[in-house]
Amino acid sequence: MARFVSLESIDVRFPTSQHLDGSDAMNPEPDYSAAYVVVRTDADDGLEGHGFTFTTGRGNDVQTVASAALAPWLVGRDVDDVLSHLGPFGRELTHDPQLRWLGPEKGVVHMACGALINALWDLRAKRAGLPLWQLLSGLEPEEIVDLVDFRYLTDALTPADALALLRGAAPDRAERQRVLLERGYPAYTTTPGWLGYDDAKLARLAREAVADGFPLIKLKVGASLDDDLRRLAVARDAVGPSVGIAIDANQRWDVDEATAWMARLSEFDPYWIEEPTSPDDILGHAVIRAKIAPVRVATGEHAHSRVMVKQFLQAGAVDVIQIDASRVAGVNENVAILLLAAKFGIPVCPHAGGVGLCEVVRHLAMFDFVAVSGTMDDRFVEYVDHLHEHFVDPAVVVGGRYLAPTAPGTSAEMRRQSVLDHRFPDGPVWRDR
Amino acid sequence: MARFVSLESIDVRFPTSQHLDGSDAMNPEPDYSAAYVVVRTDADDGLEGHGFTFTTGRGNDVQTVASAALAPWLVGRDVDDVLSHLGPFGRELTHDPQLRWLGPEKGVVHMACGALINALWDLRAKRAGLPLWQLLSGLEPEEIVDLVDFRYLTDALTPADALALLRGAAPDRAERQRVLLERGYPAYTTTPGWLGYDDAKLARLAREAVADGFPLIKLKVGASLDDDLRRLAVARDAVGPSVGIAIDANQRWDVDEATAWMARLSEFDPYWIEEPTSPDDILGHAVIRAKIAPVRVATGEHAHSRVMVKQFLQAGAVDVIQIDASRVAGVNENVAILLLAAKFGIPVCPHAGGVGLCEVVRHLAMFDFVAVSGTMDDRFVEYVDHLHEHFVDPAVVVGGRYLAPTAPGTSAEMRRQSVLDHRFPDGPVWRDR
Repeated sequence: MARFVSLESIDVRFPTSQHLDGSDAMNPEPDYSAAYVVVRTDADDGLEGHGFTFTTGRGNDVQTVASAALAPWLVGRDVDDVLSHLGPFGRELTHDPQLRWLGPEKGVVHMACGALINALWDLRAKRAGLPLWQLLSGLEPEEIVDLVDFRYLTDALTPADALALLRGAAPDRAERQRVLLERGYPAYTTTPGWLGYDDAKLARLAREAVADGFPLIKLKVGASLDDDLRRLAVARDAVGPSVGIAIDANQRWDVDEATAWMARLSEFDPYWIEEPTSPDDILGHAVIRAKIAPVRVATGEHAHSRVMVKQFLQAGAVDVIQIDASRVAGVNENVAILLLAAKFGIPVCPHAGGVGLCEVVRHLAMFDFVAVSGTMDDRFVEYVDHLHEHFVDPAVVVGGRYLAPTAPGTSAEMRRQSVLDHRFPDGPVWRDR
Repeated sequence: MARFVSLESIDVRFPTSQHLDGSDAMNPEPDYSAAYVVVRTDADDGLEGHGFTFTTGRGNDVQTVASAALAPWLVGRDVDDVLSHLGPFGRELTHDPQLRWLGPEKGVVHMACGALINALWDLRAKRAGLPLWQLLSGLEPEEIVDLVDFRYLTDALTPADALALLRGAAPDRAERQRVLLERGYPAYTTTPGWLGYDDAKLARLAREAVADGFPLIKLKVGASLDDDLRRLAVARDAVGPSVGIAIDANQRWDVDEATAWMARLSEFDPYWIEEPTSPDDILGHAVIRAKIAPVRVATGEHAHSRVMVKQFLQAGAVDVIQIDASRVAGVNENVAILLLAAKFGIPVCPHAGGVGLCEVVRHLAMFDFVAVSGTMDDRFVEYVDHLHEHFVDPAVVVGGRYLAPTAPGTSAEMRRQSVLDHRFPDGPVWRDR
C-alpha cells in the first residue's frame, strides 16, 4: 500500500514588474509568483502531484507557509484512499474547525487548501494517464456530485439539481469530446492591454491579436478616464469593428464611480466590464449592472468561495462568471461553481494569465463544455503569453483557440530548473538583486 | 526622533479544548490562541504597542508568520509620524497591491494588518496616557473620519455622512463619558451556554448569571434539535421569564435548515439568532430574517470587512451587527463599521470571549456610545469569564456591566509570563504534551 511521504512548499517568484507586464489599475508592478506545492508518495511509479497558489509577489512567503502547514493532513495517508475520495478529503480540509477560523473559506488558508487539492488531482490524473479535463469528463454524474461541498448551497443548488444537470449533459459527452479535440476551445487575449504599455505597443499587439485569430481582446482601464478613452479608441482602430474589446477595472471604482466611468466608456461597445468594484460587493455589482445595461458585467477571479458566486447569481449581479484555478478550494470548489453557473444559465469565462493559470484553468473550461454546460457559446478562456516556457505541458493557443491538452495531469507542473532558478529569495534570479 | 525598531510576532496558545470551554456546533474543541504582536521603538519612554489576532488553534502559526511579514512596513519609520497618521498608515497596508492579492481585505493577511494597526493604537493610547475609548472619543470628528477607508463605501456612507453623524453626537460627549464612567456598559454572558456543558452545569451557570446581574445570556445551538429544545427549556427555567436568551448557531445551517430549526426554537422567545448560516451569505441572512421575524438576526464576528457589513445593512439582512476586535483591519475598520451601523440605525453588540477579545472590544463599544451612536439601548458587549487573568488590564464586569477601563492603551497587553508559558510549541504548557 502506497502512502504520502511529503508535501513540499516552495516560494517561486518571477520578476515581471521589470517590464510592466501584468500592470493594471490596482496592480501597478506585480511580480508573478507561485506558492508551489509538490506531493510525493512511496509508490514505485515515480509520480508526483503538483499544484500552486498564484500571487503577485509580497506575501508569497506567507502563502508558502500556509501550504506547508497542511502537511499533517496528508503525510502518512493511503494514496489510493485519498485520491479516490477527493470530495471528502477536500471537505476535511476546509471544514477543519480550527483552520476554518482563519477564513472561513477565504484568503490564504483557503487558497492553500486549493493548492493541495489541485496537486492531488494532478497526481490522480497522472496515475490515470489522462489530462484532468478528460478524467473529470469521464466520471459518473454521481462521482462529480460527490466532489461538491453543498454546505450553504442548497437554497440555490441541491445535489439533485446537480445530478439532473450532469445527467442531462451525459449522453453527448463523447461527441463534444470529439469536437473539443478537433477544434479546441475559444480564447481571448489580454496581452495587448496592460496599463503600463504605450499606445504604439497597444496598437501593435492588438493588431497581432487579430492576426492570430483572437475574437476578443481585453484592455485594462480605471486609472485615468482620459487615458482609457484614448486607449479604447486606439484599440478599436487597431482591431476593427468585428473583434470584441472587453475592459477590466480590477476593482478600482466605487459603485457610483463605476456607473459614471461606464457612461463614458460604453460608446466603445465594450464586450464586458470586469471587476468594476470590490469583488465582495455583490449588491454593488447588481446596481452597476442594472445601470449600465446592456454592457455585460463580469467578475469572479477574486470570488473567494462558492457562497459568493451563489449570491452573485441569485442577485442577478453578473453576466459572466470568471473562475480562477487557484483562488478557491481547488478543482472541487470550481466544479461546484461550474454547476451553479449552469443552473443559472450564466457563461463561465475563466480568468487566466499570471503564472500557470492558463495551463490549469483550460481543463476546467473543457470539462464544463463536455460534461456540464455542454456549450462553448459566449465562452472564452483568458490567454496571456507570459511564462508558459516554465511549464512541462504549456498551454497552446492556435488560431485564437486553446488546444485540448493530452498529457496526463492538470498541467500545473513547472520545469524543475525554473523552480530552482526562481526560488525566492535564494534562487539565482533573486540572489543578486 | 524616535523610530520603530522591531515587530515581534509570537504564537501563543491556551489548551482550552481540555474542558470544552468554547465548544459550539462548529468549533467542538478550540484551543484559544493569539498571534500576538509587540511593536517596539527606540524612544526612551519604554512603551510598547501590543495587539493580536485571535484564532482557535491550528493555523495560529500561519497567522503569526503573516504578522511578522509586515515588519518591513513599520521598522525604521518615524514613530510620531506613523502614530499621528494611523488612517493613512492602515490604508498603506491594506492597499498594498501585492499583499492585497491574498485577500483582498480578508483572511490571514487582513487580520495581520488588524493586529499591527491595533498594536499601534495601543502604543498611541499609552503615549497619550488614555484608554483607547477615551482617546478615540476625544478626537475631532474630522480626525475620526480620516481613519476610515471609504473605498467601496460611498454608495452607503460618504465622508460627509460620517462627519454629520459625528458632529451630531459631539455636543453630548462629555455627559455620556460621565455616565459611562459611573455606570459602565451593558454586558451579556455566554459562559453558561457552551455546547459541551451538561444540563446541570448549564442550569447552575445560568442561575449564577442572573444572580450576577446579567440581563441576557447566550446558548450555543445547532448540533441537535432535540438537545437544543431541551437545553433552551432548562435555561428558560433557570433564568425566568424576564432575562433574555440569545442563541448562536455558529454558521451551522443552510438557509432552509435555519428557517426550519428556528420555527421550532422560536417558542422559547430567543433574543436573537446569531450566525444562522455562512457569514458570507448576505442574501441568505436576508431570507432567513424575513422568514423568522420577529426573531432578530445577528452576525458580524466573521464579517471580514466593511464591504460585507455595508451589504448586510443595505440588504436589510440583520438586526444586530457584532463587531470583532481582531477580524478586520483593526480599530480603523471597526470605526468604519460603527459609522455604517449608526447610519443605518442598527445596534452594534460586539463579539467577545476567546482570548483578549473582551479586553479590547469594550473600548470600541464605549467609543460608539460616547461619540458615534450616542446610545446603549439594545446594546450589549459579550462577556465570557475565560483567560482574563493573563492580561495586564483585564475586563471587569460588575452587576452585568463592563466597567470603563482607565489604564492607558487598548488593554491588549498580555502578562509577559503568560506569553512565555503558553508559547507554542516550546512554552512549558505545550512542551510536555
